[in-house]
Amino acid sequence: MANTLRVAIAGLGTVGGGVVKILQSHKDLITARAGRCIEIVAVAARSPEKDRGVDLSSYAWEIDPLRLPFRDDVDVVVELIGGGEGVAKDLAEATLAAGKTFVTANKALLAHHGYELAQRAENNDASLFYEAAVAGGIPVIKALREGFAGNEIKAVYGILNGTCNYILTAMRETGRDFDVILKEAQSKGYAEADPTFDVEGIDAAHKLSILTALAFGVKPEFENLETVGINRITATDINAARELGYRIKLLGVARRWDNGKITQSVEPCLVPVNSQMGAVDDVFNAVEVIGDFVDTGLLVGRGAGEGPTASAVLADLIDAARGHDFPVYGVKTADLKVQEGADPVDVLARYYLRLIVLDEPGVMADVAAAFKAYDVSMESVVQHGRDLNKPVALIMTTHEASKASVKALCVALEKLDSVIDAPTLMRLESL
Amino acid sequence: MANTLRVAIAGLGTVGGGVVKILQSHKDLITARAGRCIEIVAVAARSPEKDRGVDLSSYAWEIDPLRLPFRDDVDVVVELIGGGEGVAKDLAEATLAAGKTFVTANKALLAHHGYELAQRAENNDASLFYEAAVAGGIPVIKALREGFAGNEIKAVYGILNGTCNYILTAMRETGRDFDVILKEAQSKGYAEADPTFDVEGIDAAHKLSILTALAFGVKPEFENLETVGINRITATDINAARELGYRIKLLGVARRWDNGKITQSVEPCLVPVNSQMGAVDDVFNAVEVIGDFVDTGLLVGRGAGEGPTASAVLADLIDAARGHDFPVYGVKTADLKVQEGADPVDVLARYYLRLIVLDEPGVMADVAAAFKAYDVSMESVVQHGRDLNKPVALIMTTHEASKASVKALCVALEKLDSVIDAPTLMRLESL
Repeated sequence: MANTLRVAIAGLGTVGGGVVKILQSHKDLITARAGRCIEIVAVAARSPEKDRGVDLSSYAWEIDPLRLPFRDDVDVVVELIGGGEGVAKDLAEATLAAGKTFVTANKALLAHHGYELAQRAENNDASLFYEAAVAGGIPVIKALREGFAGNEIKAVYGILNGTCNYILTAMRETGRDFDVILKEAQSKGYAEADPTFDVEGIDAAHKLSILTALAFGVKPEFENLETVGINRITATDINAARELGYRIKLLGVARRWDNGKITQSVEPCLVPVNSQMGAVDDVFNAVEVIGDFVDTGLLVGRGAGEGPTASAVLADLIDAARGHDFPVYGVKTADLKVQEGADPVDVLARYYLRLIVLDEPGVMADVAAAFKAYDVSMESVVQHGRDLNKPVALIMTTHEASKASVKALCVALEKLDSVIDAPTLMRLESL
Repeated sequence: MANTLRVAIAGLGTVGGGVVKILQSHKDLITARAGRCIEIVAVAARSPEKDRGVDLSSYAWEIDPLRLPFRDDVDVVVELIGGGEGVAKDLAEATLAAGKTFVTANKALLAHHGYELAQRAENNDASLFYEAAVAGGIPVIKALREGFAGNEIKAVYGILNGTCNYILTAMRETGRDFDVILKEAQSKGYAEADPTFDVEGIDAAHKLSILTALAFGVKPEFENLETVGINRITATDINAARELGYRIKLLGVARRWDNGKITQSVEPCLVPVNSQMGAVDDVFNAVEVIGDFVDTGLLVGRGAGEGPTASAVLADLIDAARGHDFPVYGVKTADLKVQEGADPVDVLARYYLRLIVLDEPGVMADVAAAFKAYDVSMESVVQHGRDLNKPVALIMTTHEASKASVKALCVALEKLDSVIDAPTLMRLESL
């Protein structure tokens, strides 16, 4: 194992540049920790002439990344191109087919094609590493795959998208509404020009689907993952949550219920203000793992950015250099069970429910009647403001109720004459 | 690798029983994750007849644990006897000398003899695993050795002793003094009958010395680790910290300064009440790692107890079963640098300083003169209570000052006629 691990990097954006920087600046440190040299031999990106702030002159340059796996001088391909289809997928397939190691930060690719890639890795005696794909600098893949491997995992959940957490934190701190803060985040570079992937929860859902498979030893199922974004949250919700002793966080939650059924969802939830999870603000991510022996383990760190993501790629490269290998989802694909979704009737939680109603006599009676009809028990109700015959917010919390009942209740509430707009429903999460 | 990994367990106390429980209850899960069976073949403990709540009937029984490494049917010895010398040390040496894998939860052993054991492991091509030795259920050894391995680590610090954290939390919540809470903790089983190891910070220091070596790639130095316990903290300190916006935590802090010198200390510190570390209460542990690329990573979990500690042992066993091996301190012992301690003149921090003084005219002038003489700048001072010619508490905070100055200042303050008792000095920690 004294020979050099020869690395090719496909994609020289922020993270690619970060990987080059670490490997150049920490050569001796990494050699000592990995037990052998890790050296970049080739890179692939468009525009070789572009200044990327790092010296790339000693590396072979490929315009076409798909040539990298076929180079005899490459042992590992690091894919930092992104996207769930196209070049990234082709590159993964070609690298694994060549029996080489594929390291990626690409959650979309894994969410959509991880299972097939895992099979391909097995069939070709190749390795697939993806620490950088979930929660950037937080070593959560390693924690689930190794650190907590002695446990039957009951739940894994957390704040998996830094953009959303930044927006929600800024909304809370400034009292301003979603649209205003989003624009500000975009101008600061914390949100993309097209923020859909982030604010609609799709990015977090990609990550959660990976964690679910790894935690529970089940075949990943991205398609059945319920996703609600943060774009309907208003300053009213933020304030109401505060008054109730909670903060709103976009949580990805994967849970195995006592009957073995699994739920996975990404949606804004209310978490207690004095909980560790509730204290995770700004662009930070956090993942909590609940296992039957370890009880609970929380990991907090930066979810994205050059340094943290490149650090995660390095962890994978060092594992690969040490000759360590793992099944992609912790167990062989043949051992992965099919994910059985829980029946909403069996999924119990407490809820926050915000209605915009016309402030007129009888509204409260109508709402209460609907709660009764759907067997949902109200824990508290507060009307925000008083403005006869004008729209006001009605904030309710429920006792534990089934998801099926609460969803049906929301449909019924929306049909009431005095209810304007669809109800906003959020879980009070206390795992 | 389809063959079984054959394990012997030395010591069947709480944690030993937990390891047996996991291996018995999660047989299929662990086989799938480890890629092969992990089976207990032998155990060693006194009193074979004692009921330990688990079925041990199918395992060979040794009264003398030192026979375990010599059994042909044993690949791995799990040492859960404890103690820095004696049987545990002999067992470690014999197991490694036999070229077998040694898994331990024994921080005292590693703090005192880790370096020699690491050399012995290398010389005999044997493995030494110790995830369970530091912060129980928190996979911090794995995080430092692997997850953050691409980083130059600047600091690793945290709450490493659950007993102290429980006591400090209870003092804060009840307003009662150390002695009262300690007795309560003892009656609840959260503190030992002889609490010295915990409350004087020795247990945390054992753990910190291990983290220091692993984080910075230096030879472990337990002897030069500065340790201050929590037994001099009073309800007055707890309240004063609260008023200043802090909480008192027993922190183990290892830090590499810009000049490459290292400080490691275990002492009560003031951490901001609204920080993640400040929110870690009760028996929970937490470790924060600061690396140059990853920035900051925090891990929180249970630091002790049957389940969490056994979970950590299992992580090591699964690594061993997968055939993964690591240098004990992340790099070969030959690559470990000698730890150079920082000069106290170069170690800067802000401090909390509590004096008990006689409430008489001129005290403040004397104290202020001492601060001036030692070039320590006072940031705030509050006298708690007013009681002419009787002892009152004087609470001060300093601007950033060198450790050397502050220590000298304390010696001078203690000599003042109006100062009763040695000053209580705590760092305001904000890494």
